[in-house]
Amino acid sequence: MAEKDENKEPAITEITPKSEDFSRWYTDLVRRAELADYSPVKGCMVIRPYGYAIWEFIQRGLDDRIKATGHVNAYFPLFIPKSLLTKEAEHVEGFAPQVAWVTRGGTEELEEPLVVRPTSEAIIGTMYAKWIQSWRDLPVLINQWANIVRWEKVTRLFLRTTEFLWQEGHTAHETAEEAEEETLKILALYKEFVETELAIPVIAGRKSESEKFAGAGRTYSIEALMGDGRALQAGTSHNLGQNFAKAFDIKFQARDKSLQYIWGTSWGMTTRLIGAVIMVHGDESGLVLPPRVAPYQVVIVPIPRGNWRETVLPHARQIRDSLVAAGVRVMLDDRDAYTPGWKFSEWELRGVPLRLEIGPKDIEKQQVMLARRDTREKLPTPVAGLPGRVQELLAAIQQSLFDRALAFQLDHTSRAATWDEFTKTMEGRPGFVVAPWCGDAVCEADIKAATQATIRNLPMEAAAGPGAPCVKCSRPSVSDAWFAKAY
Amino acid sequence: MAEKDENKEPAITEITPKSEDFSRWYTDLVRRAELADYSPVKGCMVIRPYGYAIWEFIQRGLDDRIKATGHVNAYFPLFIPKSLLTKEAEHVEGFAPQVAWVTRGGTEELEEPLVVRPTSEAIIGTMYAKWIQSWRDLPVLINQWANIVRWEKVTRLFLRTTEFLWQEGHTAHETAEEAEEETLKILALYKEFVETELAIPVIAGRKSESEKFAGAGRTYSIEALMGDGRALQAGTSHNLGQNFAKAFDIKFQARDKSLQYIWGTSWGMTTRLIGAVIMVHGDESGLVLPPRVAPYQVVIVPIPRGNWRETVLPHARQIRDSLVAAGVRVMLDDRDAYTPGWKFSEWELRGVPLRLEIGPKDIEKQQVMLARRDTREKLPTPVAGLPGRVQELLAAIQQSLFDRALAFQLDHTSRAATWDEFTKTMEGRPGFVVAPWCGDAVCEADIKAATQATIRNLPMEAAAGPGAPCVKCSRPSVSDAWFAKAY
Repeated sequence: MAEKDENKEPAITEITPKSEDFSRWYTDLVRRAELADYSPVKGCMVIRPYGYAIWEFIQRGLDDRIKATGHVNAYFPLFIPKSLLTKEAEHVEGFAPQVAWVTRGGTEELEEPLVVRPTSEAIIGTMYAKWIQSWRDLPVLINQWANIVRWEKVTRLFLRTTEFLWQEGHTAHETAEEAEEETLKILALYKEFVETELAIPVIAGRKSESEKFAGAGRTYSIEALMGDGRALQAGTSHNLGQNFAKAFDIKFQARDKSLQYIWGTSWGMTTRLIGAVIMVHGDESGLVLPPRVAPYQVVIVPIPRGNWRETVLPHARQIRDSLVAAGVRVMLDDRDAYTPGWKFSEWELRGVPLRLEIGPKDIEKQQVMLARRDTREKLPTPVAGLPGRVQELLAAIQQSLFDRALAFQLDHTSRAATWDEFTKTMEGRPGFVVAPWCGDAVCEADIKAATQATIRNLPMEAAAGPGAPCVKCSRPSVSDAWFAKAY
Repeated sequence: MAEKDENKEPAITEITPKSEDFSRWYTDLVRRAELADYSPVKGCMVIRPYGYAIWEFIQRGLDDRIKATGHVNAYFPLFIPKSLLTKEAEHVEGFAPQVAWVTRGGTEELEEPLVVRPTSEAIIGTMYAKWIQSWRDLPVLINQWANIVRWEKVTRLFLRTTEFLWQEGHTAHETAEEAEEETLKILALYKEFVETELAIPVIAGRKSESEKFAGAGRTYSIEALMGDGRALQAGTSHNLGQNFAKAFDIKFQARDKSLQYIWGTSWGMTTRLIGAVIMVHGDESGLVLPPRVAPYQVVIVPIPRGNWRETVLPHARQIRDSLVAAGVRVMLDDRDAYTPGWKFSEWELRGVPLRLEIGPKDIEKQQVMLARRDTREKLPTPVAGLPGRVQELLAAIQQSLFDRALAFQLDHTSRAATWDEFTKTMEGRPGFVVAPWCGDAVCEADIKAATQATIRNLPMEAAAGPGAPCVKCSRPSVSDAWFAKAY
């Protein structure tokens, strides 16, 4: 990254305190840490290099897992003719109000307007109908990395923007069982990915009818709890059943020679994951990045005493080289124009997991000072064996961030049996509130209207029989539900 | 990839012979080898998994080089407000006739139409004006991987499509010298990349005024020669001078405290590179993929004799595992429904560099049969030490493809001193024709009108003094020029 002129950036103290206004803290931090910026196009963000580097680590980790489970990548057109989007009735109803329309190409008005893809079921379904003929062609297991446009009225950097980046998997199967198996396999893959790489614990479950994807038979999701006690949907996996197959006429000759519709799935995760990382791990001093997705895992700050460029800097460079050789991502901040104190604050704000200080006294003692971003512990550490020790510490920080987030999630999950209990809990201390629910969408809407809380997920397994009284209407519940105010 | 039903695909013989109609051969091959397909959106292609895998290897190789030279990735919005595109006069004149317009978002007509990016100088320039304040912020070295839309009237899979994928670098510098240095550094990087990874020799040079990028001060390009003797522009690197800085008001405080405009560059390579790979290396039997970008470098075809699944297949699997462990990309084609002969043709068509046959007799002799796709040599090879031998052969094939393409290029490059010579050569045997040129755009246009040939590149260095008479008008030439009919 290019060096910045200190005078031109708002000082670190200008970030709104997290405890005072979580939402402003978030936006201030995203901009001040140069993760993203507003653009001249309403609702569209620019992902700056420091933020995009996090996205590249997310992409790499996720793409490896998607390929390891037998999927391949492909690329489908950005534009979808209006007539294709409208083929699946629920789908068009869900998406038509929030799409961007291309009506002119070059100098001519288009006969049929094109939609900028809000998701790609329609265009991919059309191609699958062309490519799939026999059971021998199945399964088709394709993923795409792409940009997506949804015309949002209220936007927030990373969390909800008119354009965002994502991956979308689209698969076709011979049987209903295989499609369900795929849907759940991806849900588990998403959970493992987010927990391992982003150190964010999630609740995996099934969406209620009113929260499911437009056109899906069944939607599963993983839900994470942010630092302000609001939930964020981190990834979704849809069993499409035969809905899109019937709308797009995706048929195959089965083993018994009969013509059958394929069974479909689709699933996606987006750049909003970066927002989740910020909101789950960030603190009053700024970002706290999990080592596995941190652009720099270690920042080296040489302490400038006397002719430090001749005495300290060569040692700092040697240490950098030994860490890089061990596969650690290192920034050596040897800028003259800034004091060590300023650099400490700056790299804390940018969430670098480990700071390494080295000055003349450290060199005498053949040691360095390590400082953990998460616990702020300062650890004098011998230069001998440093790369191994740094790797251990990075792994420990990754684990510790997960443990802390899990403790927060558990601490912010409560049960409510009565409506009175429910409303009080939703006011007093936000988070997940688990409560029995009758299964009625009207009741679900009433709860939302009264408390802003929505059903984030239902348990994976349906309950065995009628349960405790619904928290709202007291009729017998069909299952528990995780309620929360959500992004 | 999913298995295909033999009966549903056109037979291999249905590909138009290359010698008969190069253009139809190309399109037949792209579709039959499942690299890409037409989509329901006019001019937009679907890049299928086998084609996209090649793109992923191109991305990886190019991205590594871009980062190794100090650049970072970022992401800028897909949409550009009309008012921004029109700020640079030549730029808008060049691109306005070929952009897609978004005029409606959700349910509302937009007050200001948005352009779907045909290139990102305008949006990136706007952000740079916001981010860059001091000489300390320079250089800014940002690259973006993105989709691009240009409303093309005549399209061809990979070579010219309404939507394509690319990378675009956009840099800002303190001095004119640094900008020129960057422009040439990237040109050299592109040349090295295309020659090393794609085994395609290129001519690096400078564009004439009429062929340069709309808004650039100077455009450099690398030009490759296709199998039909037509040239293809494979990558461009533009020195933008201060044109965009002035249009977008990108200023910085210089070391002497004065306010200065930055010096800019931009540069890009696209999915058309896949088209170049096909047209340079392909032959009558189909694709010939350079090992470094081949999705599969080796295909193993077990010879089915007797109970081959018990006798031959375990050996084939063992060999596959040993090759994969050595970092080789392997496909083991153990499908029952196809004969070895069919598989040989199919994987030849798909351009896999090495075929490995193994049958009962080979197992007895502790050997396998290797067959090179490029030379069709068959090489009985001991199982002992096989991975090392395969790696040697893959390197040899990569080199041999480059050598062959270079020989073809040299064989199809001639000089012409007179107009008569020039027109005869352009008719008779297409390729590069090097000829002296007066530097006049009118003369350049006359040559194009008469022969369809355009100036692909001028030499990097201007000639020392007046040269031989211009091949068209006989006035003194300013330099030689590479002429060719081009894609």
